[in-house]
Amino acid sequence: MQSHPARLIALKRDGGEWTQEQIRDLVSGVVDGSLGDAQLGAFLMAVCCNGMTRDETTQLTLAMRDSGQVLAHPQVARPKIDKHSTGGVGDKVSLLLAPLVAAAGLAVPMVSGRGLGHTGGTIDKLGAIPGYRTDLALPEFGHVLEQCGYAMLAPSGALAPADRRMYATRDVSGTVESIPLITSSILAKKLAEGIDGLVMDIKTGRAAFLPREADARLLMESLVAVGQAAGLRMAALLTDMDHPLGLALGNALEVQEVLLALDGHGPDDLREVTLALGVEMLLLGRVAEDAGTARNILERLWRDGVVRQVFRHNLELQGGDVRVLDEPDRLGRAAVVLPVLAKTSGHVVDVEPRTLGEVVVDLGGGRRQPGDVVDPHVGVVLQKVLGDAVQTGEALAFVHAADAASAAAAAERVAAAMPIGAERRRRRPLVLGRLA
Amino acid sequence: MQSHPARLIALKRDGGEWTQEQIRDLVSGVVDGSLGDAQLGAFLMAVCCNGMTRDETTQLTLAMRDSGQVLAHPQVARPKIDKHSTGGVGDKVSLLLAPLVAAAGLAVPMVSGRGLGHTGGTIDKLGAIPGYRTDLALPEFGHVLEQCGYAMLAPSGALAPADRRMYATRDVSGTVESIPLITSSILAKKLAEGIDGLVMDIKTGRAAFLPREADARLLMESLVAVGQAAGLRMAALLTDMDHPLGLALGNALEVQEVLLALDGHGPDDLREVTLALGVEMLLLGRVAEDAGTARNILERLWRDGVVRQVFRHNLELQGGDVRVLDEPDRLGRAAVVLPVLAKTSGHVVDVEPRTLGEVVVDLGGGRRQPGDVVDPHVGVVLQKVLGDAVQTGEALAFVHAADAASAAAAAERVAAAMPIGAERRRRRPLVLGRLA
Repeated sequence: MQSHPARLIALKRDGGEWTQEQIRDLVSGVVDGSLGDAQLGAFLMAVCCNGMTRDETTQLTLAMRDSGQVLAHPQVARPKIDKHSTGGVGDKVSLLLAPLVAAAGLAVPMVSGRGLGHTGGTIDKLGAIPGYRTDLALPEFGHVLEQCGYAMLAPSGALAPADRRMYATRDVSGTVESIPLITSSILAKKLAEGIDGLVMDIKTGRAAFLPREADARLLMESLVAVGQAAGLRMAALLTDMDHPLGLALGNALEVQEVLLALDGHGPDDLREVTLALGVEMLLLGRVAEDAGTARNILERLWRDGVVRQVFRHNLELQGGDVRVLDEPDRLGRAAVVLPVLAKTSGHVVDVEPRTLGEVVVDLGGGRRQPGDVVDPHVGVVLQKVLGDAVQTGEALAFVHAADAASAAAAAERVAAAMPIGAERRRRRPLVLGRLA
Repeated sequence: MQSHPARLIALKRDGGEWTQEQIRDLVSGVVDGSLGDAQLGAFLMAVCCNGMTRDETTQLTLAMRDSGQVLAHPQVARPKIDKHSTGGVGDKVSLLLAPLVAAAGLAVPMVSGRGLGHTGGTIDKLGAIPGYRTDLALPEFGHVLEQCGYAMLAPSGALAPADRRMYATRDVSGTVESIPLITSSILAKKLAEGIDGLVMDIKTGRAAFLPREADARLLMESLVAVGQAAGLRMAALLTDMDHPLGLALGNALEVQEVLLALDGHGPDDLREVTLALGVEMLLLGRVAEDAGTARNILERLWRDGVVRQVFRHNLELQGGDVRVLDEPDRLGRAAVVLPVLAKTSGHVVDVEPRTLGEVVVDLGGGRRQPGDVVDPHVGVVLQKVLGDAVQTGEALAFVHAADAASAAAAAERVAAAMPIGAERRRRRPLVLGRLA
C-alpha cells in the first residue's frame, strides 16, 4: 500500500470521500495482505456507517474486478448477458433461464454461488445432478459457453479475489448490510465474467436478503447506477420473496421441478419470474425489439422443446447424466418421505418462507457455515400454496429427510409455517418493480 | 463469547446501545481471542462512528479493568491518588508531582506509559536515570509505594490486558480518535492500579493528542463522568499544550530539568502546572480543605527540600543512582551539542511544539513504532521561549544529538519552529479549565 492504511480508514470514519487511487490502494492491500484483518474490519465498518458515493462504489467495484482475472470471450459473437439474484427460498430460476435465453441467441457465462443460511445456491442445485461439474477450468468454461450458449461455474479464487476476503470478513464482523458493499461485491464478480449486460433479480419480502422493500429498491438503484457506470448494460426487477418460489425446496427436489418445468409442467410462479427475467435479458442483448416480441420468442422456444435441448447439451458438456431428463429418479431420493397433514379444514393463509428455508438447512440440505457438506436429497415439497383450500388430513407438503426423527421435527415446523384459516388470501404480484 | 459477535457489532453499527452483559461478552472475546481481529476492528470503528453512551462507556471501562489483575493496597493507609496526562511535549510533570504529593501524605501508585510519536512517556524519562527499574513485580510495586509514598511502574500484561490489544488495534485501524474509547482506555488502566481518586491533565493545543479545545473539553467531561460512575473521585484540569512545557525535551535532558526543579531552579511553567495538579490531588485525597491551604502545603514541602528527600528515597527503592541528585552529569550526555543561533533580532513569536517533538523522535529520542529503541541522551534544550527578546547570533536552543549530521538537520528544523519577529507575544494561561 502507498498510503498509511489507518489514515485512509480514518478518512472514511470522518465522513470523507476516497479518491480512485486511495480505493485501489485499499483493494490491493486486501489482496496482498498488507491490509490486516483489523484494518479490513474497520474499513468495512466505516463504509457501513458512513456510506460511499456512487463514484466511490464504482471505483471499488472496478478495483475489486481487477483484483483477479477478468474474462473475455472473443470467440463468442453472441451478446453476453447474465442474470443474478440476491437470493431466495426455492429460487431455481437460473437453471431454467440460462438455457432459455441461450436458446434465444444469448451467451450466459454464469458464475454462481453456493447456498448459505436459509437461501439456496445454484451451484448446490446443479451438484444434485449426477456427474455435473461446476469446477471447470477457465478455458473449458469458455468452450462450454461457445458450444451451447451457457456455462455454469462455481466461484474460485481466480475471479475478483478481493471479494472473497472481503465477503468472508463481512460475514463475521457485522458488516454485511451495506448497499455500497453489497453492490460492489455482486458487480465485481459479474464484471469479471466478461459480460455485456446484467439483469438483476432483487428479491424483497420476508425471506429476502433485504426484507424491506425500501431497502431492496435502494439496492436496485445502486446496482443499476454502478453497473452502468462500470460499463454494463443493466436492468433490474424487484420480485416477491414473501413466499417460496415454486413448490420444491432442496437441491435434488428443485432440479426435479426444473425438469418438469422444462416440459411445461412447472409451477406458474417459477415460469412467470423466469420469463420476466428472460425478457429483460433479451432486451439487454438486443435480440428482441420490445418486451412483447421477447416474450413470444421465449414462450415459443420453451413450448417447442428447444430449451430442453439446450439444457441437455449443457449437461453433456459439463458431465451431467443426461438420462435424468427422462428418468428423474436418477437424481436419487431421501430415505424418509413424510407428509405434513392438515389438522383442520380451510385455506392456507400463509407460507412462511424463512422457516421453510431454515427447515431445509436443518434437514442437512443447506449450510450454516461455508464449509458445511450438503445432503442433496433432503427438502420440502409443497402441495398447497397461499390461498389454496385444504381439508383435514390432506397433505400440505412432503418432507424429504435422512431419518424419521429429523423428518418428524421438520414436519412440525412446516405445519406451523403453513397455518390454515378462513380467509382466502392471494399472493401479491410476482414482479413489484423494474429499473432499466 | 455467549452472543454471536457479528450480531453484537451490528447492533452498534445500527445505532443501538449495548447492555452490560453484551459489553462484558465483547471484552472477554478481546482477551480470550474469540473476537477476531476483523471483528475487533469493526467493533472499534462502529464505536468511532456511532459513539457510546456514558453508561456504555462506564461498563466498557469496568469490563476492561476486570480483564486482568486489579490491585488493592490494603497495607497503605494513605489516600491513593494518581495523576494522568493525555500527553504533551516536554511534559515531565509526573516525575516532580509524585514525590511532591507523596511528601504531603498521599500514596501514588503510578503506572505510566512509554512515549509514542511526538509526545514523550514517563517510563522513558525514568529510564534515563542509571539503574532505575520500572519493571517491578506487583508485590515490589506495593512495597515501594508503602515505603516512600509513590511507586512508578511500566505497563505490563497484568493490568487491563484488554486495553493492550484494543490500543494496538486502534493504532493501526484508524480508530484512535474516539472519546468513549480514549476514556475507557485511560480509566481501565488507572482503575486497575487500586486508586481512590484520579486527577486528569487534559492537554489542549497544537501538540496535544486532541488539539482542538472543544474536543479536549468533551474528553474532560467524559473522563470525569465515567471515572465517577466507576467509583473514583475525579478532578481534571485543561492545560495548555500550544507550546512545550519547560525548556528540556528528551529523556535525560528532562530528568536534568526535574533535578533543577527539585532544588527550586526549574522553569516557571513546569512549576505552575505541577502545583496546580498537586492542589487537585490533595483536595481529592482530602488532606487539605481548600486550594489555598493545599498550595501552601506543597510550596512549603518543595521549598524545604522534603520533595527532594522523597525523590531520593524512591530512587533508592527503585534502583536508581542517587548520585545523580548532586552530580547530574551522571545522566550522560549526547556526543554532539549544537547551538541553534538566531539569524535576526527581535522576539520569539512562536515555539511550535509538534515539530520540536518530532525533532526529538528523529534524533532517536522517541518512537515511531512501539518496539523502537530510545536514545536517552538526545533532545533539545530551549534557551528562549515565546515572547523572549533575542539578538542575532544568540542561542535559541541547543540540540543534543548522536552525530553532527543529525544535529545539523535538527537545528534547522528547530530554527524554523522558533521564528523571530517584531511582535512580543505572550503565552495564554497554563490552566484553561477545571472540572471536579
